[in-house]
Amino acid sequence: MTATTPADDLIFGLTRVIDLPGLTAAGGAPLGAEDIAAIIGEADRFARELLWPNAQAADRHGAILENGVVRTPESYKAAYRAWIEGGWQGLAAPAEVNGIEVGGQELPQALWMAVCELVTSGDMSFSLCPLLSVGAIEAIARFAAPAQQEAWLPKLISGEWTGTMCLTEPQAGSDLSQVRTKAEPDGTGSYRITGQKIYITWGEHDLTENTLHLILARLPDAPPGTRGISLFAAPKVLPDGTRNALRCGGLEKKMGIHASPTCVMLFEGAEAQLVGEPNRGLNAMFAMMNAARLGVGVEGVAQGARALALAEPYAEQRVQGGQPISRHPDVVRMLAEIRAITLAGRLLALEAGAALDRARLLKDAEADARVALLTPIVKAWCTDRGVDCASLGIQVHGGMGFVEDTGAAQVLRDARIAPIYEGTNGIQAMDLVGRKLFRDGGAHMRGLLAEVQAADPRLAPAVAAMTRATDWMLDRGLKDANAAQASAAAYLDAAGWTLGGWMLARAAAADERYAPIAAFYLARLLPRAAARVAEIEAADSLLALLPAA
Amino acid sequence: MTATTPADDLIFGLTRVIDLPGLTAAGGAPLGAEDIAAIIGEADRFARELLWPNAQAADRHGAILENGVVRTPESYKAAYRAWIEGGWQGLAAPAEVNGIEVGGQELPQALWMAVCELVTSGDMSFSLCPLLSVGAIEAIARFAAPAQQEAWLPKLISGEWTGTMCLTEPQAGSDLSQVRTKAEPDGTGSYRITGQKIYITWGEHDLTENTLHLILARLPDAPPGTRGISLFAAPKVLPDGTRNALRCGGLEKKMGIHASPTCVMLFEGAEAQLVGEPNRGLNAMFAMMNAARLGVGVEGVAQGARALALAEPYAEQRVQGGQPISRHPDVVRMLAEIRAITLAGRLLALEAGAALDRARLLKDAEADARVALLTPIVKAWCTDRGVDCASLGIQVHGGMGFVEDTGAAQVLRDARIAPIYEGTNGIQAMDLVGRKLFRDGGAHMRGLLAEVQAADPRLAPAVAAMTRATDWMLDRGLKDANAAQASAAAYLDAAGWTLGGWMLARAAAADERYAPIAAFYLARLLPRAAARVAEIEAADSLLALLPAA
Repeated sequence: MTATTPADDLIFGLTRVIDLPGLTAAGGAPLGAEDIAAIIGEADRFARELLWPNAQAADRHGAILENGVVRTPESYKAAYRAWIEGGWQGLAAPAEVNGIEVGGQELPQALWMAVCELVTSGDMSFSLCPLLSVGAIEAIARFAAPAQQEAWLPKLISGEWTGTMCLTEPQAGSDLSQVRTKAEPDGTGSYRITGQKIYITWGEHDLTENTLHLILARLPDAPPGTRGISLFAAPKVLPDGTRNALRCGGLEKKMGIHASPTCVMLFEGAEAQLVGEPNRGLNAMFAMMNAARLGVGVEGVAQGARALALAEPYAEQRVQGGQPISRHPDVVRMLAEIRAITLAGRLLALEAGAALDRARLLKDAEADARVALLTPIVKAWCTDRGVDCASLGIQVHGGMGFVEDTGAAQVLRDARIAPIYEGTNGIQAMDLVGRKLFRDGGAHMRGLLAEVQAADPRLAPAVAAMTRATDWMLDRGLKDANAAQASAAAYLDAAGWTLGGWMLARAAAADERYAPIAAFYLARLLPRAAARVAEIEAADSLLALLPAA
Repeated sequence: MTATTPADDLIFGLTRVIDLPGLTAAGGAPLGAEDIAAIIGEADRFARELLWPNAQAADRHGAILENGVVRTPESYKAAYRAWIEGGWQGLAAPAEVNGIEVGGQELPQALWMAVCELVTSGDMSFSLCPLLSVGAIEAIARFAAPAQQEAWLPKLISGEWTGTMCLTEPQAGSDLSQVRTKAEPDGTGSYRITGQKIYITWGEHDLTENTLHLILARLPDAPPGTRGISLFAAPKVLPDGTRNALRCGGLEKKMGIHASPTCVMLFEGAEAQLVGEPNRGLNAMFAMMNAARLGVGVEGVAQGARALALAEPYAEQRVQGGQPISRHPDVVRMLAEIRAITLAGRLLALEAGAALDRARLLKDAEADARVALLTPIVKAWCTDRGVDCASLGIQVHGGMGFVEDTGAAQVLRDARIAPIYEGTNGIQAMDLVGRKLFRDGGAHMRGLLAEVQAADPRLAPAVAAMTRATDWMLDRGLKDANAAQASAAAYLDAAGWTLGGWMLARAAAADERYAPIAAFYLARLLPRAAARVAEIEAADSLLALLPAA
């Protein structure tokens, strides 16, 4: 098996598969192969030195709420300090917004996603803290007023403050139209927020002095539904140094990511500012979510990488039947599946990152459409596969995988959240079909499939199946919303297997070291795309099970 | 969707699909449909009243080792007492062995497996205690001397004592030839056992006064490897009331089944008796394992049933987008997958149980071969699917599935062990191919596929794929052990999907209430069999990744 590390793969992917040097040069902000290698090497070192050695202990410690304060594992303090000092938070953040210097390095999104994979592999619980800040930075940079940007962006981009996304309420999960949190003007231009938010990742913690909460809430005269939701920002500590009227009311006891505090946040008349236009909060939130969704997809990849990093050395040293189990064909199969799927997801995420960069640097409208199409696929396919790979990683360890000592079990416990948050994978599938495919009559998907087809003849059966599935969706699915929704998950999954194969074919074409793992994927795993398409075509058997309205 | 409960399905499966009334009547021990319904109803009540209400609290309490004593959850004491009082432990155990009354009811194995599913759904951690005893009963009934049988079987069959299986050592997991535990004759006809066993389920606990440990160990003059392993039995408390020299040295901290104590057992010169012939211990152990493997397969089914029992009511009451999510097509899909797969596994396990019963009651050699063929498939396919279904169950719950409150996360944490223990699923796949398929040149598999083919035309594509795969295995696989092993897991998986479809087709033919869910499975899920066969045929791409010897 090709003995490349994730960092090797990321450097290779960035330079040779998505050609970031060429892309950035064309965009007037050239980033050379050596720069890429140096940055990835540094990120890898950060993760290996500060996260990997402590991730299991952090899981055992967890996040602890005591007297309103959330205590995180001790090792996180040094890691977060190094994160700030390394300037990592601002890697892809803007340097300047509305003429204000805000401190970001404006490096490519694809590079940022590569860094995120390495950090998340090192410790997913830790990584969620800085990753959530990115959503806040994005929303503020795009929608906030200049004075707000000046006040908040430098703090968030340096990492001195963290940011949160306060969306979910007990009755409002996938359906944000049900948001009830209230925002009332206080007569000074500010607002008072009252309500309860749940599942707030890193809502309260002891790593920074301050946290800026971005909150969806309703103004007093807001229309019902999603057109009556506005976005607000409320800092934990007000500019005068007093505590704002918001607090963590409890931590969820979760299956995994134990060291990432998942908070119930209580807003008790918290002072907040409106961000962007009244009643347009959902737009801003979707901007945050879209960036976050690619990040969550990367979490799936990162968990596959972590599963492999634990399973491969275990299999090398575990002797059964007179030889290391890494020589047993069925173990080779499991390791190859994790490696191939993780590599496919890794490169697919970079492809989405490159499209983001093309859109920004080259003002390429096609690239915008590609981002839109790839985002739900990266989010859902990579996170579903992350769970699969984590489970395979446990299986390689046998009984040692089920006990908590090796860390293999933690990978599955941690990975299992990613198909759920930032829009469940079911929501992603409906986004892909309902928003992306239907809006342009399948034009962009067909264009993408043509590119895939041209890349490697081994992709032809999957492309043929995807073409049938796309025709089906645009015919049957467009006429019958239930049929479309019943088959959306299978459609997304088929697309993911197909595009994963495309990325591996491109990797093999660029460097023959990747040819064996690509051949394995294309021969053994790619048929799963066609099997999913068979499910789509059998939608009637599912529709027959829908309860009568 | 057909609103049948697992108990309904089990009664239906036992009476209408595998025709247990007909089978038992032909065997001279008739068991009518009403008897079956009454027993299943009682087992269901046992599980609902004594296990379901306490299973989450039991998980939180866990098993606790204090001063050499393992404390189990308080609720388990009443449940285990009721288990004994209901006579459940002896349901399928022998009534008489070598002319000695030992207290079993000798009811059919298929009925016992149905009872096990209900109990395991109620609380898997609890269920493992009585289920492990069954292996001990089986080994003693088949291999022990009459005096041993008289001393131990009545205690085990009543449930007054529990039994364990002490196989694994740190260096001897899947490869039992590496067992090092020693047994030395003490001159009185007894032996002294010295060594360390790990992963001993319910090795120490507070539910019974005594536990009989069945132990694999080596006699002083034993040849190396598997032909030098003997089986011994050592009670925790000796007949004179003193403690034997064995103890629990630690409990594993596991991902799931927290309330099932997984013990490191230290044998420090423990007094033991030889069971069966010297150096033939592995044979006896395989007898125990084979029965246990079907039981573990049932655990996978039970976890699917538990996932569904939690997800369906949740989906009914969780409103998003103005209606319960149970009406959202993608949620209907997930629930239908859990229901269809779980029902397929349930019926397939009963089919294996019926074969066991035919072999015993009708002395049917064909039935023996069917048991041999179905055992690895039931063990591996049902447990892999149990993990899938548990994961789907979490997904239906969204964020609530990842937090521990609903119990959905516990199902996945508990289910994840089943593909590992009693022979990993990789070992099952090699057993299916290497021991079952190759030994009779595929004769029994071909016979089974012919039955499947005849049952329903919708099964034809899967049977065609399985036939190709079988030909491939008997040609390519027989010539090349690596090729066979590389594709064994895919072969087993394809067989599982195919046989699951067969069982649902038979259910639909017997009662049209099952037609919609069978149609769903046959149209949407059965294509997975052919996708797996495509993997088999692409074995070379995997073999290219095998490390050089």
